[in-house]
Amino acid sequence: MDELNVEPSLSEVFNFAKYRVGGHGSRNIGVLKSAIEQVDDHIDSDIYGTGGIIEQFQEKIAKFLGKETAVFFPSGTMAQQIALRIWCDELGTQKVAYHPLCHLEIHEQDGLKKLHHIEPVLLADKDSLITWSDVQNLQEDIACLLIELPQREIGGQLPEYNELVEISRYCRKKGIKLHLDGARLFEVLPYYKKTAAEICALFDSVYVSFYKGIGGIAGAMLVGSEAFTAESKIWKRRYGGDLISLYPYIISSEYYFNLRVGKMEEYYEGAKKLAEKFNHCYSIDTRPMIPVSNMFHVMFKASREKVEQVLIQLCKETGIGITGNLREYTDTTCYCEISIGDQFALIPDEMMDTALTLLDDRMREIGSTGEK
Amino acid sequence: MDELNVEPSLSEVFNFAKYRVGGHGSRNIGVLKSAIEQVDDHIDSDIYGTGGIIEQFQEKIAKFLGKETAVFFPSGTMAQQIALRIWCDELGTQKVAYHPLCHLEIHEQDGLKKLHHIEPVLLADKDSLITWSDVQNLQEDIACLLIELPQREIGGQLPEYNELVEISRYCRKKGIKLHLDGARLFEVLPYYKKTAAEICALFDSVYVSFYKGIGGIAGAMLVGSEAFTAESKIWKRRYGGDLISLYPYIISSEYYFNLRVGKMEEYYEGAKKLAEKFNHCYSIDTRPMIPVSNMFHVMFKASREKVEQVLIQLCKETGIGITGNLREYTDTTCYCEISIGDQFALIPDEMMDTALTLLDDRMREIGSTGEK
Repeated sequence: MDELNVEPSLSEVFNFAKYRVGGHGSRNIGVLKSAIEQVDDHIDSDIYGTGGIIEQFQEKIAKFLGKETAVFFPSGTMAQQIALRIWCDELGTQKVAYHPLCHLEIHEQDGLKKLHHIEPVLLADKDSLITWSDVQNLQEDIACLLIELPQREIGGQLPEYNELVEISRYCRKKGIKLHLDGARLFEVLPYYKKTAAEICALFDSVYVSFYKGIGGIAGAMLVGSEAFTAESKIWKRRYGGDLISLYPYIISSEYYFNLRVGKMEEYYEGAKKLAEKFNHCYSIDTRPMIPVSNMFHVMFKASREKVEQVLIQLCKETGIGITGNLREYTDTTCYCEISIGDQFALIPDEMMDTALTLLDDRMREIGSTGEK
Repeated sequence: MDELNVEPSLSEVFNFAKYRVGGHGSRNIGVLKSAIEQVDDHIDSDIYGTGGIIEQFQEKIAKFLGKETAVFFPSGTMAQQIALRIWCDELGTQKVAYHPLCHLEIHEQDGLKKLHHIEPVLLADKDSLITWSDVQNLQEDIACLLIELPQREIGGQLPEYNELVEISRYCRKKGIKLHLDGARLFEVLPYYKKTAAEICALFDSVYVSFYKGIGGIAGAMLVGSEAFTAESKIWKRRYGGDLISLYPYIISSEYYFNLRVGKMEEYYEGAKKLAEKFNHCYSIDTRPMIPVSNMFHVMFKASREKVEQVLIQLCKETGIGITGNLREYTDTTCYCEISIGDQFALIPDEMMDTALTLLDDRMREIGSTGEK
C-alpha cells in the first residue's frame, strides 16, 4: 500500500477542521488545565468519598435537582447499574424495564446482567419513545422503570411533560420505582420550560452526567433520598468506584457546570436553527424534525461510503466539519449525531449557509448518479 | 460543650505538623497541578481506553513488569475483582484463596461476593504470612491464589523469595492461577534485590497501584497475557471503569512513577533506620522488627487514648507528626502504620532523635502511672 496516496479519514479531517458544528471543542489536556488553574494548590483532596471538595458539590447538585442527597460517581455506567440494583433489592425482584436502546442494554457489555443477574424488560420499539400506554401494558412485575431524557439513540426525542407526569403517577400507584437516565437532563430543560427539580420530582432516583452538554472530563452524580444514596455509597465501594481521590473529575465537573448549565437555551436554539437548514437539503432529514434539546440526528438517504466522501470534501472546501463519525443505518442510508455546544456559535452564519448549499448540491449529485 | 476548650484531635495536629515521618506530603490539588503543568495543552484525551496517552503508559508498565500487556484501571479494587473473576471463569470454579486480611476481604464491602458470588478460602492466620505449606495443605479446588507483597495489614511482611518460587511452581503444577496484589510491589524490590519483572514472572496476573509508594492521585494497572487483559477490558466496561477520559490519573501516575520508582531503596533504608529507633523506645515494637519495604507498623503497649495524648503532645513540642491515625489493637495496646516517602528525609536527624527520646520518656511515664 502506498501510504502517500492514503486519503485522510472523515474523523481525521474533522479533527483538523477549522470549525465543527457540534461539541465544545477538543477533548484535550487544556480542558483539565482550565478547570484547575483557578483552584488553590493547598485545597485538600477528597478522601474515599469524604471531604469538603466532594461534599459541597454533592450538596449543590442535590439542591439543584431538588433531592435530599447526591453521590458523585466516576461514571454513569456504574451509577445506573447501582441504582437499578438497589431498587431490585428493595422490591425483591430481579426485573427492570427500559428502552431497547438504553445505555445499559447496548453500551455496557451487559454489566447489569453479568454483575447483578437483573433481567431487563424492553419497552417500546427501537425507533419509538416509551409511552404511558407501554407502561400500562407491562405484563411483568418490575422493580424499576428507567426513562432516558432525551432518548439519545433516536436523535434525542422527548415525551411531552404531561405524559411523564402520567407515567410517574402510574408507577407510584403500582409501587414501581422510576429512575431517570438524565445523562442529558440539563439539555432538555429549555424545551420543557421546567426546572431540573420539577422534572426530577417525578422520579425516585436520578443520574446526571458532567461530560455531555456540560463538557467536563468525566463524572456523574446519582441523586435521591438519603437512604438510597447511602446504599449507593456501599455499592460504589464494591465496584471500586470509591477512589481515594476523585477531585480531578469533581473540580472539572463543577467548573464546566457553572460555565455551561445556563447556556442550554442557546444550544437548544442553535440545534433548532441548524436542523432546519439540514432539512432543506436534498435527501437529508433530521430526527427529530425539530430538535427538543441541543441534539439531533442527521439522516442521509445515501450510502455511508458516498456521504463520507461528500463530508470529507465539504470539510476541505469550507473548513466546516459536520461530523467525524458517520454510522450506517441501512445499506443505502446513514446518519450522524450532532450535539450543539460552544463551537456552533463560532461559525459565521454565511459560512454555515454556504456549506449547507454545497451539501445540498453534492447530495443531489450522488442521488442522481446511482451507486458507485 | 464549650468549643473553645476542645483539644485538637491527633489527625488535626498531624495535618498541621511541620514534619511528618511518613508519606510524600499533603494530598492536595498541588499534586495534580505539578503533574499536569509539564504536559502540552493540546495533547488529546484518551477516549474509552484508547489513544496514545493511555496506550503508551500501558506499554511502558507492561514492559517494566515483564508481561505482555497492561490495562489502566481507576482503582485496584476494580482491577483485582476482575482478575479473580476471569480466572474463576477460565477454570470453572467459584473459589479463590487469599489472606484473611486481604484488601478484598476487609476493605471492599464484599464486592467479590456480592458482584461475582466468588467464595474466598482464607489461608494462614491473621497475623501470619501465607506459607508454601498453607498452599500445599489447601483442601479445596481453587481457581486462583492471591498473594499480597508486602502483606500490608501485618506491617508489610514478606515471604522469602525462594518460598515465593516454591508457591509459584506448586500452583503451576496444580493448575492454580497465581495473582499478585502488588499495591506496594515497587516498594519491596530493594529487599528482594530483584527486578519487578523477576517477581512478576512468578505470577499469572499482577496489579500495581500508583498512589501508595508512587504517590500519584489514584489509578492502577492490571497486567498479564494478551488474552487476560483483553478480557479485563470487557469487565472494565461492565464495571463502569472504562471512562471516556482517565488522563488526569494516567498523567499523574506516570509523572510520579518516573519521579519515585527509583527512590524505593532510599525509602526502604529510611524505614529500617526509623524502625530501629522506635524499637529502642520503652514499650514500643515495630512489626516487622526490621522492615522489608518502606513500611512498618509501630505497636504501642498502652491504650489508644493514652498514646494519642502522648503523640499530640509530642507533635506540639517537636513539630514532628508520627501519625494521624492511631488504631486500637487490644484494650491496652494500639498501633499505627508508617510508610516512608519523600517527607522523612526532610526531618533533621537530631530533631528525630530528640522526638524519639521524648517519646521514650513519655511511654515510661504512662507505663508507670497505670490506667487513668
